[in-house]
Amino acid sequence: MRITIVGLGLIGGSLGMAVKRRRPSIRITGFSRKSSTLRQALRRRAIDEGIGDLERAVRRADLVVLATPVDRIVPLARRCAKVMPKGSVITDVGSTKGAIVSALRTLPRGIAFVGGHPIAGSERRGIGAADAKLFDGSLCILTPTAATPKAALRTVQALWRPLVGKIVVISPARHDAALAGISHLPHLLASALLQTVQRPPLPRTPRSFLDMTRITLSDPDLWDDIFATNRPALLVRMDAFTAQWRRLRALVRRGDRAALRALLTRSRALRHALEE
Amino acid sequence: MRITIVGLGLIGGSLGMAVKRRRPSIRITGFSRKSSTLRQALRRRAIDEGIGDLERAVRRADLVVLATPVDRIVPLARRCAKVMPKGSVITDVGSTKGAIVSALRTLPRGIAFVGGHPIAGSERRGIGAADAKLFDGSLCILTPTAATPKAALRTVQALWRPLVGKIVVISPARHDAALAGISHLPHLLASALLQTVQRPPLPRTPRSFLDMTRITLSDPDLWDDIFATNRPALLVRMDAFTAQWRRLRALVRRGDRAALRALLTRSRALRHALEE
Repeated sequence: MRITIVGLGLIGGSLGMAVKRRRPSIRITGFSRKSSTLRQALRRRAIDEGIGDLERAVRRADLVVLATPVDRIVPLARRCAKVMPKGSVITDVGSTKGAIVSALRTLPRGIAFVGGHPIAGSERRGIGAADAKLFDGSLCILTPTAATPKAALRTVQALWRPLVGKIVVISPARHDAALAGISHLPHLLASALLQTVQRPPLPRTPRSFLDMTRITLSDPDLWDDIFATNRPALLVRMDAFTAQWRRLRALVRRGDRAALRALLTRSRALRHALEE
Repeated sequence: MRITIVGLGLIGGSLGMAVKRRRPSIRITGFSRKSSTLRQALRRRAIDEGIGDLERAVRRADLVVLATPVDRIVPLARRCAKVMPKGSVITDVGSTKGAIVSALRTLPRGIAFVGGHPIAGSERRGIGAADAKLFDGSLCILTPTAATPKAALRTVQALWRPLVGKIVVISPARHDAALAGISHLPHLLASALLQTVQRPPLPRTPRSFLDMTRITLSDPDLWDDIFATNRPALLVRMDAFTAQWRRLRALVRRGDRAALRALLTRSRALRHALEE
């Protein structure tokens, strides 16, 4: 099995390191435009060889993993598919799936695309932040369609199974609706909260405020891509939040303590149901 | 110096343990209605003696610290002041200050009240969760008024100075406006977020979502008190948030990526300015 990882940032680099840790026999080629990134990826043992030419890097791969920002996945997949071996597979790690999967429905030379999204990361980025244990215990979502060859899905499942805690297979639409609620909406709330408070008025900030806003430290360009490619599902969730927020404001406004206490108690029960 | 701590939960218990650690010569009396709590507080060395009768517990105190839920502070302070030595001082640790300080402007026997709020805590509660290091490095806010005797303020400053990282002295109104933004508003946002998402749709929940909603694990009754006693300042902040949220939704709605990216970049800069 030969894998090429395209893009050696936090996710691509961590993927290489995790594969070398769990499946040392798999040969990993890494592609980056930057030779300094290739050198660092080699030094960190994230890849076995580094190639700065995309076509040369993927020409003999059984599986290509695109670990780039969301907006570069579709054009890169098309370029790769032109030179990859017949019957080989492309997957990605992009944070939205509908737009990408739909654009890559048909690729040349019988190359199959299987959408993927490992739910792991941090606000840090780059090969320097890569970590062989980043995916330990985490969830990886795969989003095949009715047209996806079963063998291609199996190939991608075989990549992730040793690395993560759980794999779920759902449709791109279900993925995007789910992530809109538990990832994209929270990010926008954190940003709006910071815009509301601006510079905090005290020389120390409560832990809860730091926890709530940490996500905004991540790269604005990556997130702009995510929001742009998941707009319809995100707007649905934003409006659902607005409705909840209005309800809550009405309770506070009229001082309905019993109803507010009941709502806080329901929220606590919802939060208790989540595993830490 | 003799201190009585009224209420031996997370904050009261931690305060006793912290004082014993930093100022072992200070004698601490603890009051709780529950004898099991008094026993546990003695066992954990949070107090030197435990008394289940309020008047008896405070009769010889130079300083009484009310560490109860917000809605019990005012009636307890009035009861304590009737029997405390002339010239002694009462302070509290309540999360809102305007309503409390205003209700306790005049107390019998020349007893002075100085509002206090150590910004520390966790979603856990009770003497079992108490921790001698809970206040290490944290901020304690004191809210005297023009009528507060300087000596009373100095007494309360002397209590907290060895225990916390920093003390700030501001008006009750400034305290309540500040906390509305960095504590009470975020709590309501976390609750509305959980109400929007309900049960998360995936078998794992992203770390960022867990971080954003952890605050909702705390006691609904305590928070209901906080919201009820800081309603005007909270409504101002809720409406400021609503305005930011509308602006953000408009950007997403019309796909204005440049403006959205600029906003995310500003949010990141605001977050970077906060110390972790």
